[in-house]
Amino acid sequence: MLPHPIQNLINQFSKLPLVGPRQAARFVFHLIKQPKIELEEFAKAILDVSKNLKKCSLCFRITESSDICSICKDSRRDKTIICIIEKDTDIKAVERTSRYKGLYHILGGNEIKDLGQESLKELHLKELMARIEDNKEIKEIIIATSATTTGDTLALYISRLLKSINLPTDRQNIKITRLGRGLSTGSELEYMDEETLSQAFLARK
Amino acid sequence: MLPHPIQNLINQFSKLPLVGPRQAARFVFHLIKQPKIELEEFAKAILDVSKNLKKCSLCFRITESSDICSICKDSRRDKTIICIIEKDTDIKAVERTSRYKGLYHILGGNEIKDLGQESLKELHLKELMARIEDNKEIKEIIIATSATTTGDTLALYISRLLKSINLPTDRQNIKITRLGRGLSTGSELEYMDEETLSQAFLARK
Amino acid sequence: MLPHPIQNLINQFSKLPLVGPRQAARFVFHLIKQPKIELEEFAKAILDVSKNLKKCSLCFRITESSDICSICKDSRRDKTIICIIEKDTDIKAVERTSRYKGLYHILGGNEIKDLGQESLKELHLKELMARIEDNKEIKEIIIATSATTTGDTLALYISRLLKSINLPTDRQNIKITRLGRGLSTGSELEYMDEETLSQAFLARK
Amino acid sequence: MLPHPIQNLINQFSKLPLVGPRQAARFVFHLIKQPKIELEEFAKAILDVSKNLKKCSLCFRITESSDICSICKDSRRDKTIICIIEKDTDIKAVERTSRYKGLYHILGGNEIKDLGQESLKELHLKELMARIEDNKEIKEIIIATSATTTGDTLALYISRLLKSINLPTDRQNIKITRLGRGLSTGSELEYMDEETLSQAFLARK
Repeated sequence: MLPHPIQNLINQFSKLPLVGPRQAARFVFHLIKQPKIELEEFAKAILDVSKNLKKCSLCFRITESSDICSICKDSRRDKTIICIIEKDTDIKAVERTSRYKGLYHILGGNEIKDLGQESLKELHLKELMARIEDNKEIKEIIIATSATTTGDTLALYISRLLKSINLPTDRQNIKITRLGRGLSTGSELEYMDEETLSQAFLARK
Repeated sequence: MLPHPIQNLINQFSKLPLVGPRQAARFVFHLIKQPKIELEEFAKAILDVSKNLKKCSLCFRITESSDICSICKDSRRDKTIICIIEKDTDIKAVERTSRYKGLYHILGGNEIKDLGQESLKELHLKELMARIEDNKEIKEIIIATSATTTGDTLALYISRLLKSINLPTDRQNIKITRLGRGLSTGSELEYMDEETLSQAFLARK
Repeated sequence: MLPHPIQNLINQFSKLPLVGPRQAARFVFHLIKQPKIELEEFAKAILDVSKNLKKCSLCFRITESSDICSICKDSRRDKTIICIIEKDTDIKAVERTSRYKGLYHILGGNEIKDLGQESLKELHLKELMARIEDNKEIKEIIIATSATTTGDTLALYISRLLKSINLPTDRQNIKITRLGRGLSTGSELEYMDEETLSQAFLARK
Repeated sequence: MLPHPIQNLINQFSKLPLVGPRQAARFVFHLIKQPKIELEEFAKAILDVSKNLKKCSLCFRITESSDICSICKDSRRDKTIICIIEKDTDIKAVERTSRYKGLYHILGGNEIKDLGQESLKELHLKELMARIEDNKEIKEIIIATSATTTGDTLALYISRLLKSINLPTDRQNIKITRLGRGLSTGSELEYMDEETLSQAFLARK
């Protein structure tokens, strides 16, 4: 029905997460009304990410051009603390708070959904252990995985892994923490799940 | 259009919170298909709450028959700790967690939405202050208001009020706490609001 | 946890269609804040529908006090046309349009969901057939069931039933119609289901 | 925060209709995990639509390579009937029904939202009039605009325009039709808007 280039582009957009064929068609019919130059820029933007991306060799953030990313290089960041997160976009969320000034370590992997051996192998866990062993400044590691069943299990797994590192006596007091649990903004007692409310009581202060 | 008794009952149901005329009609057409005895029981249940309810003279929970409610009377509850909540249904939420074994104090009032002088006067605050002054066992007061702007402001107000009580020297170390803030079950970093994520970092442990 | 009269009333409200225990609790805690007189009126309104309702002996609308309902009695209504509908609330919808001036016949039954023999027996179909046989004025019967699978099947069933009535030769041209299918207000072609769009093409004019 | 090529691609995706920065980021982080070849194909697909698209000179469908589109050329299509639609994706919807075998005429324009002089000038109306004047076979024109206020007004406008064409006496019986209105699949009387139910009564059959 539709000309081949249009159907082809609809198919491409349909591969994006949560995009159905109808939304994809909407995207395409929007695009074909734009000036040619805009489409060329869009295409170039896609090619650019296919070419120019590397990962920071310390924290595994996606970076543009050099080996060590801007956060790892930044002398104002607190090098004694590492926050372990699941994916690049989580950094954006944490940085928005302006609360955290330490370093990151990205687990990566293809959307952490299950914790089978295969999935665990994809995560940058070996590199995390090496980073901690090598890096004598580190005093605290925050495991900032999601508050989901998978996130909790992963946190437990990582926490055991970290405790298994053979550190010299003077470094054995590295703190391993997790983000606080409790009421999120807007919570009303009446509608809270039992587990969260339970933890909010435990964490009262 | 509709017979008067039906329209009249639709109007009654329409007064309930968040019930529109269409849902009210649905309720009524459901009811008129039920056996007469069921309607009579429903009507009786409404009359019963209109007649038989009192408030506990200590915590202001709604009670059925006596002056002091079953929680306040229960010898297994921890009398050294009082949890201040907004309304009766909050108790249900807290009790479900099985985490809290202390007493309650219900602020009451008609859905705490604003904190004008009138609204504040409706709350059982004076009685709270008296209860604390009189009750030498109390060691901790948990202010468990909602994590909303109103709830936070109210908590601040109550906290100041509590600090203004003139207690004897040996009782000045009563702890005033609030429920912990942070990730609720299911939270993913990427979608958390800044304030909650910020507090989750502060409350890490 | 909750006093018995409150829990009991919550249970009563929970029996209403689509009302969960939480919403029921919300209703009850709203009610117990109302003046006693309001609760008594609510209870009385429920008792009233339990006592005073009959059904029109012609069209089976729920009526208050007499045998024949106000629509069936109304001399301005067009007696040559009967609209068959599923339930009382459908009349409200039709009357709102001010388009239809004929009579009604309510199928009734407990929410027409399946069309087993038991369910069909509950509907006022026998009475419909008798009404048509007896009533020589009738020239058109509109089967206004829902445009759902059940509604369509039911319409087909009724239509066959009507055609099976043994009418005298001069009455055999009674029209049996169904409501038009097609675009409803707000429809955009792009988002219409195939069947409706198909029928909209057939019904173009 | 994010490397420039990533932020740039997020910006590109954010220009798509109804895509916010968060969803755009999700798209981009999905893409960067794909093999390089896939990104290159995506980019090429975008470039392809920027280069290779023309419009059918008869019906203004977007076509790939020749002047007259596949539907206009198809000898099996009924040339006596033209269906006027708003945009290319509407054809897809109509063709899915397998109900319509005639030709199309696409109004085009940038999403028909208002009907000011500027917007009307963008539509292929002049070409429609010429097409009808030139084409002696045409016997029916279906105005298949949306059932919205704008769609209805536009349909009225087009209908007047068509009637103003000075056709020879033997062609003055061209039918101008609109799609039928009424219940769409799944409609229940109780929940229908007055206008649609009103039209469903008018269009009963």
